[in-house]
Amino acid sequence: MELLEKKILKDGVVKAGNVLKVDNFLNHQMDIALFSEIGKDFYRLFGDCNVTKILTIEASGIGIACVTAQSFNNIPVVFAKKSKSKNISDNVYTSTVVSFTHGGENDIVVSRDYLNPGDRVLIIDDFLANGSALEGLMSIVEQSGATLVGAGIVIEKGFQPGGEKIRSKGVRVESLAIIDSMNDDGSLTFRKQG
Amino acid sequence: MELLEKKILKDGVVKAGNVLKVDNFLNHQMDIALFSEIGKDFYRLFGDCNVTKILTIEASGIGIACVTAQSFNNIPVVFAKKSKSKNISDNVYTSTVVSFTHGGENDIVVSRDYLNPGDRVLIIDDFLANGSALEGLMSIVEQSGATLVGAGIVIEKGFQPGGEKIRSKGVRVESLAIIDSMNDDGSLTFRKQG
Repeated sequence: MELLEKKILKDGVVKAGNVLKVDNFLNHQMDIALFSEIGKDFYRLFGDCNVTKILTIEASGIGIACVTAQSFNNIPVVFAKKSKSKNISDNVYTSTVVSFTHGGENDIVVSRDYLNPGDRVLIIDDFLANGSALEGLMSIVEQSGATLVGAGIVIEKGFQPGGEKIRSKGVRVESLAIIDSMNDDGSLTFRKQG
Repeated sequence: MELLEKKILKDGVVKAGNVLKVDNFLNHQMDIALFSEIGKDFYRLFGDCNVTKILTIEASGIGIACVTAQSFNNIPVVFAKKSKSKNISDNVYTSTVVSFTHGGENDIVVSRDYLNPGDRVLIIDDFLANGSALEGLMSIVEQSGATLVGAGIVIEKGFQPGGEKIRSKGVRVESLAIIDSMNDDGSLTFRKQG
């Protein structure tokens, strides 16, 4: 997605440890006009998949998922909650996620009330790096018996293993920008996509 | 807001300890068409206030704030992050928030890059009960030197002290539904608003 790549080049900051800081427009301050274009692009990719529900994970996936849902005729969005207590109710699907950025481990939970075998689920998230969050969400979809349509990612770090690992399982992963390298001088290279 | 009150009556669940469970449409599964109407109603209330930025707090405020921003000509949304480490950067405003639902205490942080004295800030959140989250966000706006236009709340528990406490400080708080009582039989009463 050209608009997104331009935004990353303009406002993203490459930091030590393969960290790409995009909190200017994606995951702290949020550029809502850009989110609308992102939502339209996810619809271009998944609009013919009869998606009934969008699943994301708190916190930075939520805004993107909500705006994306507007392009999908306002289907419901469910966000997985990070929880140490699993106390939303006794009635939850749960999985464990390791954060690339923070290193910590979180249980994530989704109420059984909001995913069921009739659902066709599109997972939306802001980042894909090692794939732990995405695998956790995939596990929750599987537990629910719903059909996983695929995953729409805003920025994938193509030089980390998550994308390849998950695509090799047969899951359709569409990333609007894939970064193939980040360099010490602060530059980065995008993968060319069809 | 009549649509919201009807939704609360239809899908909200009154639980022990003055908890109103609205995770069917507001803070776990999210009804995006309703969010659009909520955003329009906040614009009806604050549309003439020259708002330049919306401030909310993770996680359940984010979706509402992003959709609301669309009614405000796509102004940026900033969400305060709950943090125990304050490690977003050295360059943050910070405050402390006590959760009504979970009891725990969180530091919240906002990068100094995303609020400044030129901003006119509308705070958006899903709930107002004891007012701790709102006071934390107000403190962050004050630290930044920005102008606080007011706070737009989806559901206020009018029988808890937050709303009165904050209005008595001269802050404009607009709640789209104010619940004046919740009863053991599961019923609830809304405050009539102009």
